[in-house]
Amino acid sequence: MAVTSRDNAIFEAGIKLGALYHQFVGTPLSLHTVDSLEKAIAQSISVQPYVKSITVHIDREMVKESLTSFGYTELKGTMLKVDATIKYENHEVSVGLSLKDGYPLMYIKDVKET
Amino acid sequence: MAVTSRDNAIFEAGIKLGALYHQFVGTPLSLHTVDSLEKAIAQSISVQPYVKSITVHIDREMVKESLTSFGYTELKGTMLKVDATIKYENHEVSVGLSLKDGYPLMYIKDVKET
Amino acid sequence: MAVTSRDNAIFEAGIKLGALYHQFVGTPLSLHTVDSLEKAIAQSISVQPYVKSITVHIDREMVKESLTSFGYTELKGTMLKVDATIKYENHEVSVGLSLKDGYPLMYIKDVKET
Amino acid sequence: MAVTSRDNAIFEAGIKLGALYHQFVGTPLSLHTVDSLEKAIAQSISVQPYVKSITVHIDREMVKESLTSFGYTELKGTMLKVDATIKYENHEVSVGLSLKDGYPLMYIKDVKET
Repeated sequence: MAVTSRDNAIFEAGIKLGALYHQFVGTPLSLHTVDSLEKAIAQSISVQPYVKSITVHIDREMVKESLTSFGYTELKGTMLKVDATIKYENHEVSVGLSLKDGYPLMYIKDVKET
Repeated sequence: MAVTSRDNAIFEAGIKLGALYHQFVGTPLSLHTVDSLEKAIAQSISVQPYVKSITVHIDREMVKESLTSFGYTELKGTMLKVDATIKYENHEVSVGLSLKDGYPLMYIKDVKET
Repeated sequence: MAVTSRDNAIFEAGIKLGALYHQFVGTPLSLHTVDSLEKAIAQSISVQPYVKSITVHIDREMVKESLTSFGYTELKGTMLKVDATIKYENHEVSVGLSLKDGYPLMYIKDVKET
Repeated sequence: MAVTSRDNAIFEAGIKLGALYHQFVGTPLSLHTVDSLEKAIAQSISVQPYVKSITVHIDREMVKESLTSFGYTELKGTMLKVDATIKYENHEVSVGLSLKDGYPLMYIKDVKET
């Protein structure tokens, strides 16, 4: 079957979430640096092709609970809540990453023609 | 618009390529370890949901040309050629990653109903 | 103070453990691919300068316990046990990474002149 | 030989540079996000144990030259200039990462007793 603009919009959205997750999971962070890390992650993804918007939220409560005695921890996939909109030609797709049954799930929220 | 099985197959395919790229780019390698790295990359992606098959090829010529005086280099995106098939419900999507105009491009090759 | 050969041996050992950890944490794995991943990690570090030997062990019990319903998980720092020997000029340093009080600790085991 | 406070200071310094490099190389960036990425990298390392100070500089000229037609590129090791000071007990070690003969070299600049 021919590859459509809808297909490409969704494919690009998947790429962005996979990239974000595997680039940044493991990054050291503390409660003092969580703002800066959220911003850097969002910006690093937003420079990639077809990204219309993205918000990245890291769960402060989970960061707090997992701090070691040294006062820091690492970014885990379960701490992330991401919402992104990708636009490819005349299709716009909204995707998310969030905790579902203890697992960081990536999912398509909506696809629309613009 | 409702999210279809075709959409999800393509979304999962995008996630896998984004993950592969950002997990493994930067890995130290030499001509002696390229086989083992190709295998480990392919296997690490193949354990993820909905992956039907995957092959990973690292360009030996490019590895050779970029070896430092210490006899090793790092995996770069431009060295990778990946072909993967993702199956989600009754849709199968074939995707690729390869060098195009000097840039490691990810693309959809085919989508079919099974 | 002048930088000695002992200093450089230890510095290189630290680099290797930091690199290993942050390159590979987050890698998808299952009980079927753990052997291949251990080998690829050990090889990728062994190609770097001054590495005399390295062994990488991933705790199968911890992998098993953290498998999702999809039958896979991600490499976590706590799953790793690494032993490495770095040789720089006439100094040899043995270092380790292993779980200590719930935390993946990196430490110097021994330094000797050869 | 017994492991000294000097040894541990140097070991910790090596860990930090290895971690920084392998966590962040591959991160997508553009000329508009380079400030934010520098800051996030410096902060993520500074939360780790024994880090007294760290500065991270990304070469804007190299970023500019490697921009794809999509207006972004990825962080490469050769773009990085890092200076860090690690303090462990009564020893302070200054280390650097910078381009040397086309290769991103990590080195000890100074060790002192405080």
